[in-house]
Amino acid sequence: MSQNTDNVVGMQNCDKYAREYFMPPVTSLKWTQKEYITEAPMWCSVDLRDGNQALVVPMNLEEKLQYFQLLVSIGFKEIEVGFPAASETEFAFLRTLIEQDLIPDDVTIQVLTQSRDHIIRKTFEALHGAKRAIVHLYNSTSRAQREQVFRKSRQEIIDIAVSGAELVQACAAQTPGNFQFQYSPESFTGTEMDFALDICNHVLDVWRPTPEHKVIINLPATVSMSMPHVYASQIEFMSEHLKHRENVTLSVHPHNDRGTGVADAELGVLAGAQRVEGTLFGNGERTGNVDIVTLALNLFAHGVNPRLNFANLPAIRAAYERLTNMEVGKRHPYAGELVFTAFSGSHQDAIAKGMKWREEDERRYWSVPYLLIDPKDVGRAYEGDIIRINSQSGKGGIGYILEQHFGIDLPAEMREGLGYRVKSVSDRLHKELLPREIYDIFIEEFVNLNAPVEFVGYHVANQVDYLTSVTVRIDGCVMEWTSTGNGRLDAISRAIQQNLGVAYSNLVYKEHAKGVGSASQAVSYIGITSSDGTRHWGCGMDADIFTSSVKALFSVVNKLRPAVSDLVQERSSAGPIRSLYG
Amino acid sequence: MSQNTDNVVGMQNCDKYAREYFMPPVTSLKWTQKEYITEAPMWCSVDLRDGNQALVVPMNLEEKLQYFQLLVSIGFKEIEVGFPAASETEFAFLRTLIEQDLIPDDVTIQVLTQSRDHIIRKTFEALHGAKRAIVHLYNSTSRAQREQVFRKSRQEIIDIAVSGAELVQACAAQTPGNFQFQYSPESFTGTEMDFALDICNHVLDVWRPTPEHKVIINLPATVSMSMPHVYASQIEFMSEHLKHRENVTLSVHPHNDRGTGVADAELGVLAGAQRVEGTLFGNGERTGNVDIVTLALNLFAHGVNPRLNFANLPAIRAAYERLTNMEVGKRHPYAGELVFTAFSGSHQDAIAKGMKWREEDERRYWSVPYLLIDPKDVGRAYEGDIIRINSQSGKGGIGYILEQHFGIDLPAEMREGLGYRVKSVSDRLHKELLPREIYDIFIEEFVNLNAPVEFVGYHVANQVDYLTSVTVRIDGCVMEWTSTGNGRLDAISRAIQQNLGVAYSNLVYKEHAKGVGSASQAVSYIGITSSDGTRHWGCGMDADIFTSSVKALFSVVNKLRPAVSDLVQERSSAGPIRSLYG
Repeated sequence: MSQNTDNVVGMQNCDKYAREYFMPPVTSLKWTQKEYITEAPMWCSVDLRDGNQALVVPMNLEEKLQYFQLLVSIGFKEIEVGFPAASETEFAFLRTLIEQDLIPDDVTIQVLTQSRDHIIRKTFEALHGAKRAIVHLYNSTSRAQREQVFRKSRQEIIDIAVSGAELVQACAAQTPGNFQFQYSPESFTGTEMDFALDICNHVLDVWRPTPEHKVIINLPATVSMSMPHVYASQIEFMSEHLKHRENVTLSVHPHNDRGTGVADAELGVLAGAQRVEGTLFGNGERTGNVDIVTLALNLFAHGVNPRLNFANLPAIRAAYERLTNMEVGKRHPYAGELVFTAFSGSHQDAIAKGMKWREEDERRYWSVPYLLIDPKDVGRAYEGDIIRINSQSGKGGIGYILEQHFGIDLPAEMREGLGYRVKSVSDRLHKELLPREIYDIFIEEFVNLNAPVEFVGYHVANQVDYLTSVTVRIDGCVMEWTSTGNGRLDAISRAIQQNLGVAYSNLVYKEHAKGVGSASQAVSYIGITSSDGTRHWGCGMDADIFTSSVKALFSVVNKLRPAVSDLVQERSSAGPIRSLYG
Repeated sequence: MSQNTDNVVGMQNCDKYAREYFMPPVTSLKWTQKEYITEAPMWCSVDLRDGNQALVVPMNLEEKLQYFQLLVSIGFKEIEVGFPAASETEFAFLRTLIEQDLIPDDVTIQVLTQSRDHIIRKTFEALHGAKRAIVHLYNSTSRAQREQVFRKSRQEIIDIAVSGAELVQACAAQTPGNFQFQYSPESFTGTEMDFALDICNHVLDVWRPTPEHKVIINLPATVSMSMPHVYASQIEFMSEHLKHRENVTLSVHPHNDRGTGVADAELGVLAGAQRVEGTLFGNGERTGNVDIVTLALNLFAHGVNPRLNFANLPAIRAAYERLTNMEVGKRHPYAGELVFTAFSGSHQDAIAKGMKWREEDERRYWSVPYLLIDPKDVGRAYEGDIIRINSQSGKGGIGYILEQHFGIDLPAEMREGLGYRVKSVSDRLHKELLPREIYDIFIEEFVNLNAPVEFVGYHVANQVDYLTSVTVRIDGCVMEWTSTGNGRLDAISRAIQQNLGVAYSNLVYKEHAKGVGSASQAVSYIGITSSDGTRHWGCGMDADIFTSSVKALFSVVNKLRPAVSDLVQERSSAGPIRSLYG
């Protein structure tokens, strides 16, 4: 029966994979009782280390200095500046920061070092003159790394960590400055939990943290291997069983291999982590580190101050793209080009209504449909960002565009007609339409239409029965038509119907000003029902409010085509209707 | 004290936000007891609807047909093909699929319709002639939409859903074909949970699902508003309280506003969802729908057959990018350019070792460090994808590149020397080095070096004491040097030391073939310790195995510069050493 039996089987070579992570021996799952994060964790940027080392072309010294300033300006208080023993560039960067006194007093730099003697010593050499720093010691602990890379036993791996911790402590004692210690069991997510706990506790026993000298234990998802709630349970296990816990700052460092880096970090924080290492826009090894922009703005959207400032996200994004040569995707949360954009008609309509609803009462919490946060809060303009028009769009969006960009407040019925017209133009041209193009379609289709019947002028003889004569030009012939009415517009309307031989009813009228002061124009809309029962709309614009309504009337009469065209044709062949000068 | 007091405060305007989602009245949290997803859910692609409507330029008919074929070829069995009543293009696309008989027997199309009479009727008109389809009815249920957009009470919103459900049922009864029904309380994540349950149960009471005619209840995170475990608890609440549950297929439809779409879907499945709606690479409104590629390959990485086939992901990605004009980011899980790439030295080293470890025994599960899955399983080549070289790279990666691309298996000590050299070239040029460039550096630095001392030829007089004469050219002068030794190479080495006046010891030797058959070359490496205790390495390549070792010896001798250069200079000024023809 199936035409695609090949596909039914999917990817059977999945049998080469087993889950390479380890469940904690006990789980308390207390974190699942918490609903959201009530306070921002400590943030540590690892852009200049983990991010930089994953770039096709790592940053040079000048670029790193600019990036450091960017991080400081956003409000990062802990910044990992590199692996100074790994290369001359990284060493030189750290020396420049220290020697040129570029580290603000409230910012602590962090340096990474493997747990190897000469690397630790070189790291402290690089730190000479620093007022304070976090020295971040790591070694690999996962089963795979122990078996395949180091070919060492658990005890030998612990010995590496412990001797490194001791040397770090000794070097710190000999080096002026205030040093905090951090240990990462690298590849934590591939490590048996009892062993991860054991090695961290061994390191803590060396460092003996105090309230004044807390130690950071950082648990990296070097490779994300499990579902996010499993990572959370691993973090919770560590949090509940680490020695000296009250003097430990527990930190997470997620990567994004399974597309769940943000969830890993968030659930990890619920589970006990007090600190998050990540990068701007999730730069970093392979799929990247966790994106701190998203984490911070997720807090913001829940009404929690993220303690980082992304109010001008477009500028931050531009600096990031320039310095890293990476691109922030169009759908990247909060920062991407399209993330506040609605093309679809029903979404546009709801957004337009939601915006109005909140404008009515600013005390209302932000709850505009389809917009998690107010784009303005991250430096995005409403115009051009939120509502964009293509063949999927509808009357709501088109009306919104005309209102926001051009001060045109269309009657609801008119929006619908214009909507169909704009959609079909976009569909036919197979392209997005910019606000100006939509405005041009509106003008061309509805405003001050003067063919076949051109409005030239009018004269009101009296204010009793509003005897009014209106001058028109048809096919080059100028004519004057006269009628009375309930008012001037009614008189002109009667004159048109009588002389042109058309009939319509249910004339409705709407008017507003466009622009302010001497440049302002009156905009009038007139809707009528023609003899076959269909509704037609026209618009008039003029400095004079009444003239704008007459122009609206002529616009809609001219839209009665082919009716009016035919009539004009008919009458012309029978001789001019009542030509004045023709 | 702070230089950045502005930043300490972060973004205080967070107080305009409250959490706009609603916790379920009861939570059982049974899902937290499950560790991973043991079986692939049903997949429904919404690329052609939710994805398409979020494109700057939606696809045209021909592009949609190609995209449909792409989805079928991947193995999707349920494909939402559009909102046929929304536009002529979408209507025409559905008619083309039906009239040209393009829907395979094992694929069910799905069409979206608002709960409005004329739209439902037009939808069934568009379905005429379809053998089967899922008719997907929705209306908005969130508090924000009810208050701001529809300005209707809960009961009025239920009435919309119920009357739509009744009309869908009536139209289906009158239309030939096999129709399954689906209902979405759109904006579910902004809806009070008791109300979401109530409205779904009202619809279920109309449709009365049976085992033969199951109904799909789809719970969209139209906007993702909560942490992923909260969404899971919402899904679990619905799963545990829906009427007719045994005949309901529970579906999730996450978006990615908080960067947690993948986690939402995965935890939602643990919590009871049996079906996931999403798109390739997460195209879709704003931040996109959940990415089914990532979801499927996350299962794959856990040893679970995803029942979709991404074995040739680069081709799927290329087709996607061509048809949508969207780009898959460099760090996009599984599919991005850089997601299997290690630039960093220690990562490269571990990967190279892990790859070898698995080659030793293919029964081992995949556990190569830093690579969640085998890149080959998604159509990526090892060469050029996994290990790329820049200033962050190390000996492991460089050795791996030379071995994989050029069959050069460097001795460990030599890797280190070449590693420093390559890193510094990359650092200086501020660019990534391609395999060919690394090979060129290797050749230039180590292979067949013939200055200042050029090897011309040799002659072995006997096999007893290996009396050997070797011909060299120095500064244009040809000379012949003779010595005995323990073998031919030893004799030549002694001749060099005696005549050039250099001294070295601890000569070590490694050799392997490069290439096969008549094109194969012998590659020899020789390491020596010079009188100051430092190690030097040279390499020789030649069709003849012994000649390659002599060339390796001359290469390393020539690397003793400045030593050898000075000696040559010295001797030259004192007259040619023992010139034959000079």
